[in-house]
Amino acid sequence: MPTPVRAYAATSPTSSLTPYRFDRRDPRPDDVVIDILYCGVCHSDLHTARNDWGWSTYPIVPGHEIIGRVIEVGDKVTAFKVGDAVGVGCLVDSCRHCKPCQDGDEQYCGDFTATYGGEDRHDHTKTQGGYSEKIVVSEAFVLRIPDGLDLKAAAPLLCAGITTWSPLRHWKAGKDSRVAVVGLGGLGHMALKLAKALGSEVTLFTRSRGKEADARRLGADRIVLSTDPAQMADVAGRFDLIIDTVPYAHDLNPYMPTLAPGGTLVLVGYLGPLEPALHSVPMILGRKSVAGSLIGGIRETQEMLDFCGEHGIVSDVEMIRMQDINEAYERMLKSDVKYRFVIDIASLRS
Amino acid sequence: MPTPVRAYAATSPTSSLTPYRFDRRDPRPDDVVIDILYCGVCHSDLHTARNDWGWSTYPIVPGHEIIGRVIEVGDKVTAFKVGDAVGVGCLVDSCRHCKPCQDGDEQYCGDFTATYGGEDRHDHTKTQGGYSEKIVVSEAFVLRIPDGLDLKAAAPLLCAGITTWSPLRHWKAGKDSRVAVVGLGGLGHMALKLAKALGSEVTLFTRSRGKEADARRLGADRIVLSTDPAQMADVAGRFDLIIDTVPYAHDLNPYMPTLAPGGTLVLVGYLGPLEPALHSVPMILGRKSVAGSLIGGIRETQEMLDFCGEHGIVSDVEMIRMQDINEAYERMLKSDVKYRFVIDIASLRS
Repeated sequence: MPTPVRAYAATSPTSSLTPYRFDRRDPRPDDVVIDILYCGVCHSDLHTARNDWGWSTYPIVPGHEIIGRVIEVGDKVTAFKVGDAVGVGCLVDSCRHCKPCQDGDEQYCGDFTATYGGEDRHDHTKTQGGYSEKIVVSEAFVLRIPDGLDLKAAAPLLCAGITTWSPLRHWKAGKDSRVAVVGLGGLGHMALKLAKALGSEVTLFTRSRGKEADARRLGADRIVLSTDPAQMADVAGRFDLIIDTVPYAHDLNPYMPTLAPGGTLVLVGYLGPLEPALHSVPMILGRKSVAGSLIGGIRETQEMLDFCGEHGIVSDVEMIRMQDINEAYERMLKSDVKYRFVIDIASLRS
Repeated sequence: MPTPVRAYAATSPTSSLTPYRFDRRDPRPDDVVIDILYCGVCHSDLHTARNDWGWSTYPIVPGHEIIGRVIEVGDKVTAFKVGDAVGVGCLVDSCRHCKPCQDGDEQYCGDFTATYGGEDRHDHTKTQGGYSEKIVVSEAFVLRIPDGLDLKAAAPLLCAGITTWSPLRHWKAGKDSRVAVVGLGGLGHMALKLAKALGSEVTLFTRSRGKEADARRLGADRIVLSTDPAQMADVAGRFDLIIDTVPYAHDLNPYMPTLAPGGTLVLVGYLGPLEPALHSVPMILGRKSVAGSLIGGIRETQEMLDFCGEHGIVSDVEMIRMQDINEAYERMLKSDVKYRFVIDIASLRS
């Protein structure tokens, strides 16, 4: 039988999020039914609620940094049992056949199913996210949360964590690497923690003075004020990898000379044209690359969670009630959060 | 004793190249003295002669696709002997200490010595290129030309060949790869030949109809008219590697969707801002990269030459006399060459 759930939804690009009830599907044999405990608040939630990317349909329930406990499993589920602490991230299904899916890179499947705003490939219903009491997800897209992690603070690992972990691993950040992070927000603070735990030398590029103490606490060995040409010159040719988490248009050219020969700048936060125009000369003279990276695959998300379990890594979070989501969105737009809001879903039931 | 040589030099940005005499240095113990037989004509020669990049000093003798025979060796030379067929490319020295130098990537040494327009790191004289009778080069920067290669047609391998070989190898083009080449000129025609010989599926992107027969002869399995949206859509998500040889500003955005997830577009021909602006979305949604690549290291240049020897690969060339260089430059500006001019240096002596 379908399960009725309470949730918060946007009903138009300009409306606040308001209480909303809908049914989760009757679990299929491979499904896990999850009682949601916490849900992180990602910038994508706000962009989707407000149709900033032009693909939203309403009502829409955002939320793809989901932590909960298994309350029911389908007959064919083998990896999870009732009571398990689990997570769901940005994807709840994919084609499972294409090369990216076979490689464990479901995020690059041309036909993946997003956790909210997608369409279930079996019953063609719209998917709805984690600002809700429960969710029903195929076990292939459910993650195990290691014992010992604070479940509240683990929620942002499902998006902010994996989005920075995936490029760190793909471009092989390790003990011999020099990694820089551009921007200190939800993604940036996770990038610092993860790069440090991987053993890399870690630098934060920031345009704001006064972030030094926090950045060092989060793992930065060095802070470079990107508006200061002398500080930028000091790190010329230094970095193997730059993870750029800035979510708006910004000039990449000042960062290119700070890459070592063969280095890569990876964009994880900004969707749009690279303006002002990137100049090819530093790229050609140093075999440097500019790349993009999207969240991560299911296998590597589990790898990241297990790594966080071993190293005691979670997000720095500020807990909110579901009823406070609209105020949280406004604060997020002002970068007034250190470093991720997480909704206590118990508030939905109060 | 220094060796007087006849040459052709530019004496100002606006003058034609004219006869010029200067002295090659007295060979040092590690030097090889080379009697130049042939020298390819690269676009960089023209850019430098006309000071298009702003760093030329006059008089300047261009030429960095040099083929000749050893006529004398210093006391400490071990790899070459009188009579050997040898080549010299774009570099005649580097710092030999930095990480790129240690890795065999001398082209990414921040302090390499260009074959012309550079400064010798010992006697501080200006380096002069291959539009001349002889050249004196440290054996560490001299290449062996395999037996059996047509020496005339091997000259362009020293720049056009290695410039396309290096990214093919760095990004691991092989039997399972799908490689595309943008532009069919001196670099592009070498990219087709080399990618084909490496076993890759090879596609040429071109804006000109009528190149099909030539492209197929050179190794292309497929020709895509980049101005035809239907043909572009047919190759969506297809290529692991795109080698972009176009030497002027052009829109990269139409090519990005033709990369497979994880694919890379490598710029080897264009120095300038990427306008119109590259859009980040296709990069992020497919972990795609845009990179630059500069010629190649000495070790990989030798590897390329040996590979060309095994596979019988040379450039398609049109031979000219030294006296015809100014006309050749004008024809090169109109892309009126299939596919590389090579100067018969014997004409300097006539």
